[in-house]
Amino acid sequence: MASEKPPWVTPENLCLFVDLYELTMADSYWNHGLNGSATFSLFVRELPPNRSFLIYAGLESVLDYLENLRFTPEALEYLKSLKLFSEKFLDYLKNFRFAGDIWAVPEGEIVFPPEPLLEVRAPRIEAQIIETFLLNQINFQTMVASKAARIVLAAQGRSVIDMSPRRDQGIDAALKAARSAYLAGCVGTSNVVAGQTYGIPVYGTMAHSYVMSFEDELSAFRTFASDFPNNTVLLIDTYDTLGGARNAVTVARECAARGQKVLGARIDSGDLFILSQHVRKILDENGFPEIKILLSGDLNEHKIEKLLEKGARVDSFGVGTELGTSYDAPALGGVYKLVEDERGYRIKLSAGKVTLPGRKQAWRVFDQSKQMEYDLLALADEPAPAPSAVSLLQPVMKNGRRLNPREPLSRARERCQQSLRALPMELRSMSEHSIQTYSVRLGAQLQALQARPTTAKS
Amino acid sequence: MASEKPPWVTPENLCLFVDLYELTMADSYWNHGLNGSATFSLFVRELPPNRSFLIYAGLESVLDYLENLRFTPEALEYLKSLKLFSEKFLDYLKNFRFAGDIWAVPEGEIVFPPEPLLEVRAPRIEAQIIETFLLNQINFQTMVASKAARIVLAAQGRSVIDMSPRRDQGIDAALKAARSAYLAGCVGTSNVVAGQTYGIPVYGTMAHSYVMSFEDELSAFRTFASDFPNNTVLLIDTYDTLGGARNAVTVARECAARGQKVLGARIDSGDLFILSQHVRKILDENGFPEIKILLSGDLNEHKIEKLLEKGARVDSFGVGTELGTSYDAPALGGVYKLVEDERGYRIKLSAGKVTLPGRKQAWRVFDQSKQMEYDLLALADEPAPAPSAVSLLQPVMKNGRRLNPREPLSRARERCQQSLRALPMELRSMSEHSIQTYSVRLGAQLQALQARPTTAKS
Repeated sequence: MASEKPPWVTPENLCLFVDLYELTMADSYWNHGLNGSATFSLFVRELPPNRSFLIYAGLESVLDYLENLRFTPEALEYLKSLKLFSEKFLDYLKNFRFAGDIWAVPEGEIVFPPEPLLEVRAPRIEAQIIETFLLNQINFQTMVASKAARIVLAAQGRSVIDMSPRRDQGIDAALKAARSAYLAGCVGTSNVVAGQTYGIPVYGTMAHSYVMSFEDELSAFRTFASDFPNNTVLLIDTYDTLGGARNAVTVARECAARGQKVLGARIDSGDLFILSQHVRKILDENGFPEIKILLSGDLNEHKIEKLLEKGARVDSFGVGTELGTSYDAPALGGVYKLVEDERGYRIKLSAGKVTLPGRKQAWRVFDQSKQMEYDLLALADEPAPAPSAVSLLQPVMKNGRRLNPREPLSRARERCQQSLRALPMELRSMSEHSIQTYSVRLGAQLQALQARPTTAKS
Repeated sequence: MASEKPPWVTPENLCLFVDLYELTMADSYWNHGLNGSATFSLFVRELPPNRSFLIYAGLESVLDYLENLRFTPEALEYLKSLKLFSEKFLDYLKNFRFAGDIWAVPEGEIVFPPEPLLEVRAPRIEAQIIETFLLNQINFQTMVASKAARIVLAAQGRSVIDMSPRRDQGIDAALKAARSAYLAGCVGTSNVVAGQTYGIPVYGTMAHSYVMSFEDELSAFRTFASDFPNNTVLLIDTYDTLGGARNAVTVARECAARGQKVLGARIDSGDLFILSQHVRKILDENGFPEIKILLSGDLNEHKIEKLLEKGARVDSFGVGTELGTSYDAPALGGVYKLVEDERGYRIKLSAGKVTLPGRKQAWRVFDQSKQMEYDLLALADEPAPAPSAVSLLQPVMKNGRRLNPREPLSRARERCQQSLRALPMELRSMSEHSIQTYSVRLGAQLQALQARPTTAKS
């Protein structure tokens, strides 16, 4: 057993972020000259529990990976040490580059099973060994973006901030959760490295331990207000929330006297509905209607919906655990399947796991009020179902190179907001008991192919 | 908004893996000379759903982080760009080192709420800004190790392999899931980078797409057996599982003729109980009782328990999604709280979130048959409850340096197996409806402190 190395996946060993069988299969393909062109499709077979739509995310990290994928000498040395691989194959890996084509849905777009989120057209080995990474990144980011979109919809225009890093499943999860949440409409994150990496706005105030580090709450509030005159949001529930609100008023008056403002008061525990009403009243009656109330503490879309239904007085929500882990549906079952190779269409017949063959296009058809009406999933060369139909899959990489510069995250975020405006009302319901299904139809040729189990192109 | 950087947390920007408020609080502490010695305790308030015990994991990555934590010029430049921080504080960060002490439970040990899993004794700022990272890593790794232990117990001695990377929540999650699963008793992982990083055994065979890449299943099996004579495990369910078993027999005969062996047959879909029986019969009747059967496909501890109760014929299990995401309880609510500072014990009183004050020790008491009887949570200087009681918290870092070399993962794995042997029978139940509670008592002094809400050391 090798000695332990630093506990991180780094750009240097990212090439080994792969299920072993991808490499054993690739070795076998290489030794038998089975490296002809193949098409793999990445798609989801069915919606996860409690979801009526998905927001696609993860493409940018995939393109970054594909452009930079190299097998370092250290990685090759490790593979050699396993005594599994042929010398011939390890030689091949030395000069490995991904040189295939990628078609993909743009990030932030609404998608449904079983539409391809991404198609890879590449020599078989190149297409095969990227599977683990592609699924890992797209499954997780799509899942969190989809959860975040539900939370943002529930908040009805109020701000939602990602506060999940301490409960996220590792550091990459926290980075990508912040990005996916922002893409789906959150206003920012508490995660500083996500701010640095993606330019996402960062938010933060103080913890209970800060308040406890002073003689009393008022001293803590005063100190913070003087240290952060432009960012004074006070956590008011360390000892007694209403007392905290009154202390916030005292500090707000002192700030006002020197031309400063307290921006907000945060409540993180207790009955958030009742407390938000009392705190709002205290702030308003003392002449501070402009101080905003931020609620947090194990929130999700259902709790937010109920708080607002009851009439909670709130301006923004901080959401952590449930957002960052997609708590009620923590894994998306995206799969990556061979659909075509040099011999034609490929069909897998395993029980309950049928895969639609061939290169595809997904078309979106809108009704007269610009709401999504239905999608049509068809072979890539089938005609559009309507003149106004929009094609979801676009070429994004050719011969291993991006066709366009990296898309700004703000652009994907706008696309997501635009797509959500076109989402039919019945798909917006948060209720776990009224999940509605959007219609994804099959094109005529794809239907015909599906009807006859063949593995040969006719 | 800054332009996007490569989408990874690397050793260089890991220092920014932090909730913004940790840094604003720290700035305030620094400006007011509030950097006296503080003790923070990392603990879990209550068990997650469906769990009767936790396996502690994540310490090694925490120690690695603490030893190497530095604020790079690039990171400081980003912080400066936020226009939030004082020059004085950014200067302080330039030379920041973690120089505190860590007491921790050894990895692989069984733990319960509300025992401290780790205590930090350090200048307040150093103790504060590491919170996000510590919680992120220990919450996730402990959660997955705990889930994996349940799956390993359910498998009753049969091998369990982590096959989760494609469904894990990002690349760090997949790396740590593989480690935590191995620590908790799994035999290995499909994740190659985890094999390289931690020396964990790696496993893998072939995918359905491999079988589909040949003219027929038999050709695929023959090719694989000739390419991997020492690692021939055949995936037999691409087209028809029983046909696949007969093709495996054909190839096993051909292998035998040249002195080779087929090691295993993997079934990944369909009714695993029925298929395992039929496949076992086909293999046995044809003279290959030594070919092992590997089952996989959305497995968890409940499905494994039922398969074995019914009499499935199986030698090992491949487990992915449910293991790697701790699917039924995907987040552990570990918290990190100030319990003592230069002024004495600190007590937080937020509704429903009481924190026990003071530096602590957790003692484990065993009965005469060496089964765990109860734990006692006490102040650090309270006496042991029995001469044979074992103290769970040990000093592991002093002044920012490890007291011992990095513990081999195999040692932590042994500890976990030993601990699980001492776990009372009633805590081993997999049933969601019969979760039993282990007794964690409070020491006399801690009880007395808890009874009177004071923030001053008497």
